[in-house]
Amino acid sequence: MLLPNDPAHAFLPYPAVPVGNAASGPLAGLTFAVKDLFDVAGYPTGGGSPLVLAASGIKTDTAPVVRTLLDAGARFVGKTHTDEFAFSLNGRNAHFGTPLNGGAPDRIPGGSSSGSASAVSNGLCDLALGTDTGGSVRGPASHCGLFGIRPSHGRLPLEGAMDLSPSFDTCGFFARSADIFARTGDALLGPDARPLPENPRLLIAADAFAMLDVAVRGALAVVVQAVEDLLGRAEMVEVATNGFEPLQWAFRRIQGREAWESDGAFIGKHAPPLGPGVKERFAFSRDVTAAEATDGRRCRDEFAGRLASILREDAVLVLPTMPDVAPLLTDPENALAAYRDRAIDLLCIAGLGGTPQVSMPLASRLGAPLGISLVGPSGSDGSLVRLAARVASAIGEPPA
Amino acid sequence: MLLPNDPAHAFLPYPAVPVGNAASGPLAGLTFAVKDLFDVAGYPTGGGSPLVLAASGIKTDTAPVVRTLLDAGARFVGKTHTDEFAFSLNGRNAHFGTPLNGGAPDRIPGGSSSGSASAVSNGLCDLALGTDTGGSVRGPASHCGLFGIRPSHGRLPLEGAMDLSPSFDTCGFFARSADIFARTGDALLGPDARPLPENPRLLIAADAFAMLDVAVRGALAVVVQAVEDLLGRAEMVEVATNGFEPLQWAFRRIQGREAWESDGAFIGKHAPPLGPGVKERFAFSRDVTAAEATDGRRCRDEFAGRLASILREDAVLVLPTMPDVAPLLTDPENALAAYRDRAIDLLCIAGLGGTPQVSMPLASRLGAPLGISLVGPSGSDGSLVRLAARVASAIGEPPA
Repeated sequence: MLLPNDPAHAFLPYPAVPVGNAASGPLAGLTFAVKDLFDVAGYPTGGGSPLVLAASGIKTDTAPVVRTLLDAGARFVGKTHTDEFAFSLNGRNAHFGTPLNGGAPDRIPGGSSSGSASAVSNGLCDLALGTDTGGSVRGPASHCGLFGIRPSHGRLPLEGAMDLSPSFDTCGFFARSADIFARTGDALLGPDARPLPENPRLLIAADAFAMLDVAVRGALAVVVQAVEDLLGRAEMVEVATNGFEPLQWAFRRIQGREAWESDGAFIGKHAPPLGPGVKERFAFSRDVTAAEATDGRRCRDEFAGRLASILREDAVLVLPTMPDVAPLLTDPENALAAYRDRAIDLLCIAGLGGTPQVSMPLASRLGAPLGISLVGPSGSDGSLVRLAARVASAIGEPPA
Repeated sequence: MLLPNDPAHAFLPYPAVPVGNAASGPLAGLTFAVKDLFDVAGYPTGGGSPLVLAASGIKTDTAPVVRTLLDAGARFVGKTHTDEFAFSLNGRNAHFGTPLNGGAPDRIPGGSSSGSASAVSNGLCDLALGTDTGGSVRGPASHCGLFGIRPSHGRLPLEGAMDLSPSFDTCGFFARSADIFARTGDALLGPDARPLPENPRLLIAADAFAMLDVAVRGALAVVVQAVEDLLGRAEMVEVATNGFEPLQWAFRRIQGREAWESDGAFIGKHAPPLGPGVKERFAFSRDVTAAEATDGRRCRDEFAGRLASILREDAVLVLPTMPDVAPLLTDPENALAAYRDRAIDLLCIAGLGGTPQVSMPLASRLGAPLGISLVGPSGSDGSLVRLAARVASAIGEPPA
């Protein structure tokens, strides 16, 4: 039996069946974990649901993105916990428990890529795969003190992974150090279709920072200053012309409609007992109408166009990753729901824009990690990862 | 993904880590499965609870009873589903689903050794280990059309297995054929401390048969007649001098008190969402007072003395294993609760008595299997298993 707060709780206790990797390659010597949403041959895929796990059987194919890491020489060390059906930002799986936040053990790790962030932040592996639909890599990266990326939509393949909301789903990854983060980016992302210039134009999402409590803004201000010192004076921009609320609703409705298309038949047929929060979100999802989703998509298209015109091909936008450091493990579900509301305002920017976003673990508050993000134009993922490493190096990355 | 009603749903989808067995031995050539309540080195132990599974880690030791099967040459093929914390007779695990009853696919398999009974009844292995606290081998054996034994209390070791109610917990096993059942008995049980005579005195539990619906009594009457043809005219006995109700309550209160001692701290601390029925039983268990448990133990001691004086060293008692064929998969939880009430009247006889009971798959009704049982004096387990094989052979065992 694992002790309470055992870092090994990041992993599902699947027996260790060997998975071969290349003997050499750019990631040789590094270890990685995989969110239990991706298939790995020889293992089941549970997706955070006991019943999906029970019905999974043993997979015979390995998801291509996992295969890429193996071919680059990285060694697979295990499958990691996820929120139930990946439909939460908290990392508190009612059935399987809460993986330990290696950056703040008294706080939630964030989710849904909770186990991946936990494993990396506790030093159990060098890097880990997650998925990010509405913030499931960016949130845990900020909460656990990791580099994490939500790539451009479609940039990394999601074959062999469970869907949540396909028009938002992305495959992302975590690393503790900027160096490993950049090496992983090189191995997975390949060359950029639209690389950023060496010194991109710097923008600051003024309305996103305006949402924050003053203490959080203060904790991030030093980092913003350091980025300006590196890249030059930033221009303040308003991201959301009509405020974040219509964007948040567009995101939620599209996501809900698609989540029910992904999982509604299974949930309706087998009625598995869903955990708190997840149950309410699927109930909401079931009731999203086609017309509401269509309205959401219209709003998304308009916003994506606006964001693209702000970023063009040469700018990065600085914004807070999350509203604050991770909530406490003891916080009740309604406090997490309120935190989630604020988080989605920030997270839906890159989600609706389809753009890459990197969260960097360069701030802290109350002794807990706090991320800050760079958003680049769609297709600039590799440039963004390397820029994050440069920023971290300039600022003096905190010890891994 | 397994199809609905896939027999493979008997097994947890743990990756197949090899477990060595002896190359030769009395069980060479046979395959076996293990209820996921027993430790097997290289595997986690989930006990039907997602959170226990998540916290399990990979076990490094193998339970001695599993080791005995391996040393006898049997080959391990997997770990099987159990009801949550083994605290149900139904086999419907709210989290992991319901293993397929190979004898009656539209009916529940019974539990808590549901996956073991499912695997054997669907031909996925030759024999399987279960546990029986209140009927968890006998019930599924009757429902799925298998030979199954609840041994004398303490006869087979429960080291390396999760407790439910230690003063009732036993390790039992299932087989499809009388021959394999007898071979398994020889390998696991060893010689009897108190063997039965070649032709034991035959007793019939008149009050137990009187509980049954007339159609069920009719279905069992042919088997009773055949047993009499083999062993001679039976004597009718009243097992429960004051009816079954005080016995059932004694059983429930001792079991409840001990179940809360086994699992209450874990459940209280982590508050995992419990499935229907299991939740109510743990709530009942939490509230059983020490005085109620003491009263129950006094009643148990008295009843065990009475049963021993009825059986002495030379008798077997014939009784129905379960009140009827298995309930339908579509039956609601309250129908199962009512069925459970009637079942415990029958099952608590050997439970309170600490005596061995073998269920034989020799009757049927409505196209579904129906078991009939032999109870012998404590320590007569091996004799009872061989007697069951003789009875089955005399009657003409139904095809496996």
